[in-house]
Amino acid sequence: MTYCLGIHVRRGVLLAADSRTNAGVDYISSYRKLFDFSVPGDRALMLCTSGNLSITQAVMHTLDRDLITNSEVNLHALPTMYDIARYIGTCIRNLQEIDRPWLQKDKIDFQCSFLLGGQIKGEAPQLYLIYSQGNCIRSTPETPFLQIGETKYGKPILDRTLTYESSIEDVAKYALLSIDSTMRSNLSVGPPINMIMYHTDSFQIGHKARFFAGDPYLLKMRKHWEVALREAAASMPEIEWNSPVVPTGPELGDISEQ
Amino acid sequence: MTYCLGIHVRRGVLLAADSRTNAGVDYISSYRKLFDFSVPGDRALMLCTSGNLSITQAVMHTLDRDLITNSEVNLHALPTMYDIARYIGTCIRNLQEIDRPWLQKDKIDFQCSFLLGGQIKGEAPQLYLIYSQGNCIRSTPETPFLQIGETKYGKPILDRTLTYESSIEDVAKYALLSIDSTMRSNLSVGPPINMIMYHTDSFQIGHKARFFAGDPYLLKMRKHWEVALREAAASMPEIEWNSPVVPTGPELGDISEQ
Repeated sequence: MTYCLGIHVRRGVLLAADSRTNAGVDYISSYRKLFDFSVPGDRALMLCTSGNLSITQAVMHTLDRDLITNSEVNLHALPTMYDIARYIGTCIRNLQEIDRPWLQKDKIDFQCSFLLGGQIKGEAPQLYLIYSQGNCIRSTPETPFLQIGETKYGKPILDRTLTYESSIEDVAKYALLSIDSTMRSNLSVGPPINMIMYHTDSFQIGHKARFFAGDPYLLKMRKHWEVALREAAASMPEIEWNSPVVPTGPELGDISEQ
Repeated sequence: MTYCLGIHVRRGVLLAADSRTNAGVDYISSYRKLFDFSVPGDRALMLCTSGNLSITQAVMHTLDRDLITNSEVNLHALPTMYDIARYIGTCIRNLQEIDRPWLQKDKIDFQCSFLLGGQIKGEAPQLYLIYSQGNCIRSTPETPFLQIGETKYGKPILDRTLTYESSIEDVAKYALLSIDSTMRSNLSVGPPINMIMYHTDSFQIGHKARFFAGDPYLLKMRKHWEVALREAAASMPEIEWNSPVVPTGPELGDISEQ
């Protein structure tokens, strides 16, 4: 599995991803899933991949090849983020058409999905999720994040903290906590974690970070977070048990209804 | 969907469950999934159900009926928690045998699972997960909780905070936060939340609680938690971006490797 996260707030766009790929629990390996295709001054372009590795690698290969062989339709030539999202969707469809029947014969999962984030000169920053079927959706201020892969473990921290007005520093921390929570609870998501941060209207990548297993910052952060969670729970008002000890009678299995 | 949680720590056993049942997103209703079968002084028995509602209700019906019609094999007569876990497993198997072929014909999910927690005089407290196939596992101090249903959203908070030595008060808070996190992130899990707390060696239920939607304590807790999470992130050491702004060259798509 994989966990990739894109966040688009007023002040910027962040993409982050783990690096674990597995075919069953007994074949685990590490592949990078976060890519930077920016052209400083003209466009910031970040891409995350999830799903069948042979399909996502083939899509990445097509995107790379088109930069050399197709002067009009490529990541650097297309004029809008929407055009790029549709172009990646088309690449996915073309490869699905070739490989899907063969994978399907052996019941191999052929699904894949992509996150695309950044900004092209003349446009506002944007964040897209491109589905395995080639269609796409775009994030909005109401829901300033999109996820692909193993998404559930890392969603509560984002639902509880992130808003469109969050600061860039907070966004980076929330993203790292979201991925770390997923790694902590699910073996199929693992380090290194890659993260790229883009600041609105800068048209170049602001920061990159990579955290390996055992990274001192990651360990410090995890410790800090666990202590903070325990303290937050301890300082929470005590649970108001709304029914005293009631011996259960013959109306068995019935929790008291008051 | 459903989310049920069982926690077994040194000082007690807690079972908690939401109350939402859905057949698709356009048919959502509320059913209780947490049941108390205790006989004060002799045994504390708590049960949670998840999965196909017709199957879980049929199992509950069988358990209720056997209390009246089968004097030897029932929840109050069986001498150990293990016997009770196997007995529930047998009830599940019997009903699966009857209903499964009919459900399978129309591709209806026939899976179900149960949590069983409590203590019988002469034994230590125990917590079991009984699978749809009728087999069961028991919690251990290393992993002091078991979950059924929509388990992923509520797992990180438990992984980060709960230990076998946690206090009863903290356990109740962690459980409520775990369920609330799930409700917040997934529509298929919803209120009221039911919770039963058993204190080791008391042989009667210690506390019960029910939290309806809009319950003042639940709202207070949620607010407290979200503020605490934001503060914990704000007080976290700043992210150490490990690569300065590097213009990306022709080696496209390559995050700097230092």
